[in-house]
Amino acid sequence: MDAYTCICSKRDSRSYEARPILEEPLRRILQAGRMAGSAKNLQPCRFVVVEDDAKKRELATCGQFAQHIPSAPVLVAVVLPEEGREFDAGRSAQNMMLAAWAEGITSCPVTMHDGECALRVLGIPKGYRVSIVLAFSYLSPSEPLSRGARRIPLEELVHRGGW
Amino acid sequence: MDAYTCICSKRDSRSYEARPILEEPLRRILQAGRMAGSAKNLQPCRFVVVEDDAKKRELATCGQFAQHIPSAPVLVAVVLPEEGREFDAGRSAQNMMLAAWAEGITSCPVTMHDGECALRVLGIPKGYRVSIVLAFSYLSPSEPLSRGARRIPLEELVHRGGW
Repeated sequence: MDAYTCICSKRDSRSYEARPILEEPLRRILQAGRMAGSAKNLQPCRFVVVEDDAKKRELATCGQFAQHIPSAPVLVAVVLPEEGREFDAGRSAQNMMLAAWAEGITSCPVTMHDGECALRVLGIPKGYRVSIVLAFSYLSPSEPLSRGARRIPLEELVHRGGW
Repeated sequence: MDAYTCICSKRDSRSYEARPILEEPLRRILQAGRMAGSAKNLQPCRFVVVEDDAKKRELATCGQFAQHIPSAPVLVAVVLPEEGREFDAGRSAQNMMLAAWAEGITSCPVTMHDGECALRVLGIPKGYRVSIVLAFSYLSPSEPLSRGARRIPLEELVHRGGW
Protein backbone atom coordinates (compact mmCIF):
# COMPACT_ATOMS: atom_id res chain seq x y z
CA MET A 1 0.00 0.00 0.00
CA ASP A 2 1.16 3.53 -0.81
CA ALA A 3 2.60 5.22 2.32
CA TYR A 4 0.38 8.32 2.19
CA THR A 5 -2.78 6.29 1.60
CA CYS A 6 -1.82 4.00 4.47
CA ILE A 7 -1.24 6.94 6.83
CA CYS A 8 -4.44 8.79 5.96
CA SER A 9 -6.77 5.77 5.78
CA LYS A 10 -5.61 4.14 9.05
CA ARG A 11 -8.45 3.69 11.54
CA ASP A 12 -8.21 2.57 15.15
CA SER A 13 -10.72 -0.25 15.69
CA ARG A 14 -12.01 -2.26 18.66
CA SER A 15 -13.74 -4.94 16.62
CA TYR A 16 -11.57 -8.00 15.96
CA GLU A 17 -11.38 -11.36 14.18
CA ALA A 18 -10.30 -14.49 16.04
CA ARG A 19 -8.05 -15.98 13.34
CA PRO A 20 -4.39 -15.81 14.29
CA ILE A 21 -2.00 -13.31 12.74
CA LEU A 22 0.63 -15.06 10.65
CA GLU A 23 4.23 -15.00 11.82
CA GLU A 24 5.55 -13.07 8.80
CA PRO A 25 3.27 -10.00 9.08
CA LEU A 26 3.74 -10.02 12.86
CA ARG A 27 7.49 -9.89 12.30
CA ARG A 28 7.08 -6.95 9.92
CA ILE A 29 4.95 -5.13 12.52
CA LEU A 30 7.65 -5.60 15.18
CA GLN A 31 10.39 -4.64 12.74
CA ALA A 32 8.50 -1.41 11.97
CA GLY A 33 8.40 -0.65 15.70
CA ARG A 34 12.10 -1.36 15.94
CA MET A 35 13.00 1.01 13.10
CA ALA A 36 11.35 4.10 14.63
CA GLY A 37 13.80 6.85 15.44
CA SER A 38 14.22 7.90 19.07
CA ALA A 39 15.76 10.78 21.02
CA LYS A 40 19.57 10.40 21.07
CA ASN A 41 19.01 6.99 19.43
CA LEU A 42 18.33 5.57 22.90
CA GLN A 43 15.87 3.03 21.42
CA PRO A 44 13.96 2.89 24.69
CA CYS A 45 11.03 0.69 23.57
CA ARG A 46 10.69 -3.01 24.30
CA PHE A 47 7.80 -5.13 23.02
CA VAL A 48 5.96 -7.90 24.84
CA VAL A 49 3.85 -10.06 22.52
CA VAL A 50 0.81 -11.73 24.11
CA GLU A 51 -1.17 -14.45 22.32
CA ASP A 52 -2.25 -16.56 25.29
CA ASP A 53 -5.98 -16.22 26.03
CA ALA A 54 -5.71 -16.38 29.82
CA LYS A 55 -3.01 -13.71 29.85
CA LYS A 56 -5.05 -11.48 27.53
CA ARG A 57 -8.03 -11.74 29.89
CA GLU A 58 -5.83 -10.82 32.86
CA LEU A 59 -4.38 -7.85 31.00
CA ALA A 60 -7.91 -6.68 30.16
CA THR A 61 -8.50 -6.11 33.88
CA CYS A 62 -5.62 -3.58 34.02
CA GLY A 63 -7.27 -0.92 31.86
CA GLN A 64 -10.55 0.96 32.27
CA PHE A 65 -11.48 0.56 28.61
CA ALA A 66 -9.69 -2.70 27.85
CA GLN A 67 -12.63 -5.15 27.97
CA HIS A 68 -12.35 -5.82 24.22
CA ILE A 69 -8.66 -6.80 24.07
CA PRO A 70 -9.04 -10.56 24.69
CA SER A 71 -10.86 -10.80 21.35
CA ALA A 72 -7.76 -9.62 19.47
CA PRO A 73 -5.47 -12.50 18.43
CA VAL A 74 -2.27 -10.57 19.22
CA LEU A 75 -1.47 -7.89 21.79
CA VAL A 76 1.83 -6.02 21.80
CA ALA A 77 2.72 -4.14 25.00
CA VAL A 78 5.10 -1.25 24.39
CA VAL A 79 7.36 -1.00 27.43
CA LEU A 80 9.58 1.95 28.41
CA PRO A 81 12.22 2.40 31.07
CA GLU A 82 10.78 4.64 33.80
CA GLU A 83 12.65 7.70 32.42
CA GLY A 84 11.77 6.85 28.79
CA ARG A 85 9.84 9.32 26.65
CA GLU A 86 6.20 8.72 25.75
CA PHE A 87 6.87 10.65 22.52
CA ASP A 88 9.28 7.90 21.40
CA ALA A 89 6.73 5.21 22.33
CA GLY A 90 4.17 7.04 20.19
CA ARG A 91 6.54 7.03 17.20
CA SER A 92 7.23 3.33 17.56
CA ALA A 93 3.57 2.40 18.13
CA GLN A 94 2.48 4.42 15.10
CA ASN A 95 5.07 2.64 12.94
CA MET A 96 3.69 -0.73 14.08
CA MET A 97 0.06 0.24 13.52
CA LEU A 98 0.81 1.61 10.03
CA ALA A 99 2.81 -1.47 9.02
CA ALA A 100 -0.12 -3.56 10.24
CA TRP A 101 -2.66 -1.47 8.33
CA ALA A 102 -0.66 -1.99 5.12
CA GLU A 103 -1.19 -5.76 5.68
CA GLY A 104 -4.95 -5.47 6.25
CA ILE A 105 -4.47 -5.67 10.01
CA THR A 106 -6.36 -3.23 12.20
CA SER A 107 -5.27 -2.09 15.66
CA CYS A 108 -6.06 0.07 18.65
CA PRO A 109 -3.87 1.52 21.39
CA VAL A 110 -5.22 0.69 24.87
CA THR A 111 -4.14 2.42 28.08
CA MET A 112 -3.28 0.33 31.15
CA HIS A 113 -4.61 2.61 33.89
CA ASP A 114 -3.38 0.18 36.56
CA GLY A 115 0.27 0.11 35.62
CA GLU A 116 1.29 -2.27 38.42
CA CYS A 117 -1.31 -4.77 37.22
CA ALA A 118 0.11 -4.73 33.67
CA LEU A 119 3.70 -5.13 34.92
CA ARG A 120 2.67 -8.13 37.05
CA VAL A 121 0.67 -9.86 34.31
CA LEU A 122 3.51 -9.45 31.80
CA GLY A 123 6.28 -10.32 34.28
CA ILE A 124 8.14 -7.08 33.61
CA PRO A 125 11.03 -6.28 35.99
CA LYS A 126 11.31 -3.12 38.13
CA GLY A 127 12.44 0.04 36.38
CA TYR A 128 10.00 -0.23 33.45
CA ARG A 129 6.45 0.86 32.74
CA VAL A 130 3.89 -0.16 30.13
CA SER A 131 3.36 2.83 27.86
CA ILE A 132 0.51 1.28 25.89
CA VAL A 133 -0.93 -2.04 24.74
CA LEU A 134 -1.64 -2.38 21.02
CA ALA A 135 -4.36 -4.84 19.97
CA PHE A 136 -3.96 -6.30 16.45
CA SER A 137 -6.44 -8.24 14.30
CA TYR A 138 -7.11 -8.90 10.65
CA LEU A 139 -9.88 -6.66 9.35
CA SER A 140 -13.10 -8.62 9.19
CA PRO A 141 -14.19 -8.90 5.54
CA SER A 142 -17.84 -8.84 6.65
CA GLU A 143 -17.55 -5.61 8.58
CA PRO A 144 -17.87 -2.31 6.74
CA LEU A 145 -14.73 -0.21 7.12
CA SER A 146 -15.28 2.64 9.54
CA ARG A 147 -15.09 6.08 7.99
CA GLY A 148 -13.11 7.02 11.05
CA ALA A 149 -13.61 9.62 13.71
CA ARG A 150 -14.30 13.10 12.44
CA ARG A 151 -11.21 15.30 12.38
CA ILE A 152 -10.86 19.00 13.16
CA PRO A 153 -10.43 20.92 9.85
CA LEU A 154 -6.80 21.42 8.80
CA GLU A 155 -7.24 25.21 8.83
CA GLU A 156 -8.08 25.10 12.55
CA LEU A 157 -5.14 22.85 13.42
CA VAL A 158 -2.45 24.74 11.54
CA HIS A 159 -1.01 28.17 12.36
CA ARG A 160 1.26 29.61 9.66
CA GLY A 161 4.22 31.76 10.69
CA GLY A 162 3.19 31.80 14.36
CA TRP A 163 0.14 31.18 16.52
CA MET B 1 6.40 4.64 -1.89
CA ASP B 2 5.27 1.38 -0.34
CA ALA B 3 4.23 1.91 3.30
CA TYR B 4 6.51 -0.74 4.81
CA THR B 5 9.53 0.43 2.80
CA CYS B 6 8.81 4.00 3.85
CA ILE B 7 8.57 3.05 7.54
CA CYS B 8 11.73 0.92 7.59
CA SER B 9 13.92 3.18 5.43
CA LYS B 10 13.05 6.46 7.20
CA ARG B 11 16.14 8.21 8.64
CA ASP B 12 16.22 11.26 10.89
CA SER B 13 18.67 13.76 9.39
CA ARG B 14 20.19 17.08 10.44
CA SER B 15 21.62 17.98 7.05
CA TYR B 16 19.29 20.13 4.93
CA GLU B 17 18.80 21.79 1.54
CA ALA B 18 17.80 25.45 1.30
CA ARG B 19 15.24 25.13 -1.50
CA PRO B 20 11.69 25.68 -0.25
CA ILE B 21 9.24 22.83 0.23
CA LEU B 22 6.36 23.08 -2.20
CA GLU B 23 2.89 23.84 -0.86
CA GLU B 24 1.32 20.55 -1.99
CA PRO B 25 3.75 18.18 -0.21
CA LEU B 26 3.66 20.44 2.86
CA ARG B 27 -0.11 20.13 2.88
CA ARG B 28 0.15 16.33 2.68
CA ILE B 29 2.59 16.35 5.60
CA LEU B 30 0.18 18.39 7.73
CA GLN B 31 -2.77 16.25 6.64
CA ALA B 32 -0.84 13.14 7.73
CA GLY B 33 -0.35 14.74 11.16
CA ARG B 34 -4.03 15.58 11.32
CA MET B 35 -5.13 12.01 10.54
CA ALA B 36 -3.23 10.38 13.42
CA GLY B 37 -5.50 8.72 15.94
CA SER B 38 -5.50 10.03 19.51
CA ALA B 39 -6.72 8.92 22.94
CA LYS B 40 -10.50 9.38 23.16
CA ASN B 41 -10.24 11.13 19.77
CA LEU B 42 -9.27 14.31 21.63
CA GLN B 43 -7.07 15.39 18.68
CA PRO B 44 -4.82 17.38 21.03
CA CYS B 45 -2.11 18.38 18.53
CA ARG B 46 -1.82 21.78 16.88
CA PHE B 47 0.85 22.64 14.30
CA VAL B 48 2.78 25.90 13.94
CA VAL B 49 4.56 26.19 10.57
CA VAL B 50 7.69 28.37 10.55
CA GLU B 51 9.37 29.44 7.29
CA ASP B 52 10.68 32.86 8.31
CA ASP B 53 14.48 32.90 8.71
CA ALA B 54 14.61 35.27 11.68
CA LYS B 55 12.02 33.22 13.56
CA LYS B 56 13.89 30.00 12.81
CA ARG B 57 17.08 31.49 14.24
CA GLU B 58 15.23 32.59 17.39
CA LEU B 59 13.70 29.13 17.81
CA ALA B 60 17.16 27.57 17.46
CA THR B 61 18.15 29.30 20.73
CA CYS B 62 15.39 27.44 22.64
CA GLY B 63 16.90 23.96 22.30
CA GLN B 64 20.26 22.58 23.41
CA PHE B 65 20.79 20.71 20.14
CA ALA B 66 18.83 22.96 17.80
CA GLN B 67 21.68 24.89 16.12
CA HIS B 68 20.98 23.23 12.76
CA ILE B 69 17.29 24.06 12.45
CA PRO B 70 17.60 27.45 10.68
CA SER B 71 19.05 25.60 7.67
CA ALA B 72 15.80 23.65 7.19
CA PRO B 73 13.31 25.42 4.90
CA VAL B 74 10.30 24.43 7.01
CA LEU B 75 9.84 23.81 10.72
CA VAL B 76 6.64 22.43 12.19
CA ALA B 77 6.15 22.84 15.94
CA VAL B 78 3.81 20.23 17.41
CA VAL B 79 1.90 21.91 20.23
CA LEU B 80 -0.11 20.18 22.97
CA PRO B 81 -2.44 21.48 25.64
CA GLU B 82 -0.66 21.26 29.01
CA GLU B 83 -2.53 18.05 29.91
CA GLY B 84 -2.08 16.53 26.40
CA ARG B 85 -0.28 13.22 25.96
CA GLU B 86 3.21 13.05 24.50
CA PHE B 87 2.27 9.62 23.13
CA ASP B 88 -0.33 11.25 20.86
CA ALA B 89 2.20 13.88 19.74
CA GLY B 90 4.60 11.05 18.85
CA ARG B 91 1.93 9.36 16.70
CA SER B 92 1.14 12.59 14.88
CA ALA B 93 4.81 13.55 14.40
CA GLN B 94 5.65 10.10 13.06
CA ASN B 95 2.79 10.35 10.54
CA MET B 96 4.17 13.69 9.32
CA MET B 97 7.76 12.45 9.07
CA LEU B 98 6.69 9.31 7.17
CA ALA B 99 4.49 11.26 4.75
CA ALA B 100 7.46 13.57 4.18
CA TRP B 101 9.85 10.66 3.61
CA ALA B 102 7.52 9.26 0.96
CA GLU B 103 7.97 12.62 -0.88
CA GLY B 104 11.78 12.58 -0.65
CA ILE B 105 11.69 14.98 2.30
CA THR B 106 13.87 14.23 5.30
CA SER B 107 13.19 15.39 8.85
CA CYS B 108 14.36 15.40 12.44
CA PRO B 109 12.53 15.93 15.73
CA VAL B 110 14.19 18.60 17.87
CA THR B 111 13.52 19.14 21.58
CA MET B 112 12.91 22.66 22.88
CA HIS B 113 14.59 22.41 26.28
CA ASP B 114 13.56 26.00 27.11
CA GLY B 115 9.82 25.63 26.70
CA GLU B 116 9.02 29.24 27.64
CA CYS B 117 11.40 30.44 24.92
CA ALA B 118 9.62 28.37 22.26
CA LEU B 119 6.17 29.54 23.39
CA ARG B 120 7.31 33.18 23.22
CA VAL B 121 8.96 32.89 19.79
CA LEU B 122 5.90 31.17 18.33
CA GLY B 123 3.37 33.42 20.08
CA ILE B 124 1.56 30.48 21.66
CA PRO B 125 -1.04 31.35 24.32
CA LYS B 126 -1.00 30.08 27.92
CA GLY B 127 -2.19 26.53 28.53
CA TYR B 128 -0.08 24.94 25.78
CA ARG B 129 3.43 23.53 25.49
CA VAL B 130 5.66 22.72 22.52
CA SER B 131 6.04 18.94 22.42
CA ILE B 132 8.61 18.92 19.63
CA VAL B 133 9.82 20.88 16.60
CA LEU B 134 10.13 18.93 13.34
CA ALA B 135 12.64 20.20 10.76
CA PHE B 136 11.84 19.31 7.14
CA SER B 137 13.99 19.52 4.01
CA TYR B 138 14.26 17.86 0.62
CA LEU B 139 16.96 15.20 0.61
CA SER B 140 20.08 16.57 -1.01
CA PRO B 141 20.77 14.61 -4.20
CA SER B 142 24.51 15.10 -3.66
CA GLU B 143 24.54 13.65 -0.17
CA PRO B 144 24.78 9.89 0.28
CA LEU B 145 21.76 8.52 2.14
CA SER B 146 22.66 7.62 5.70
CA ARG B 147 22.43 3.94 6.51
CA GLY B 148 20.78 5.04 9.72
CA ALA B 149 21.68 4.51 13.34
CA ARG B 150 22.35 0.93 14.31
CA ARG B 151 19.34 -0.77 15.88
CA ILE B 152 19.20 -3.26 18.73
CA PRO B 153 18.48 -6.75 17.28
CA LEU B 154 14.78 -7.65 17.11
CA GLU B 155 15.35 -10.69 19.32
CA GLU B 156 16.56 -8.43 22.15
CA LEU B 157 13.66 -6.00 21.81
CA VAL B 158 10.86 -8.55 21.70
CA HIS B 159 9.64 -10.80 24.53
CA ARG B 160 7.15 -13.48 23.46
CA GLY B 161 4.38 -14.49 25.87
CA GLY B 162 5.78 -12.39 28.72
CA TRP B 163 9.01 -10.71 29.76
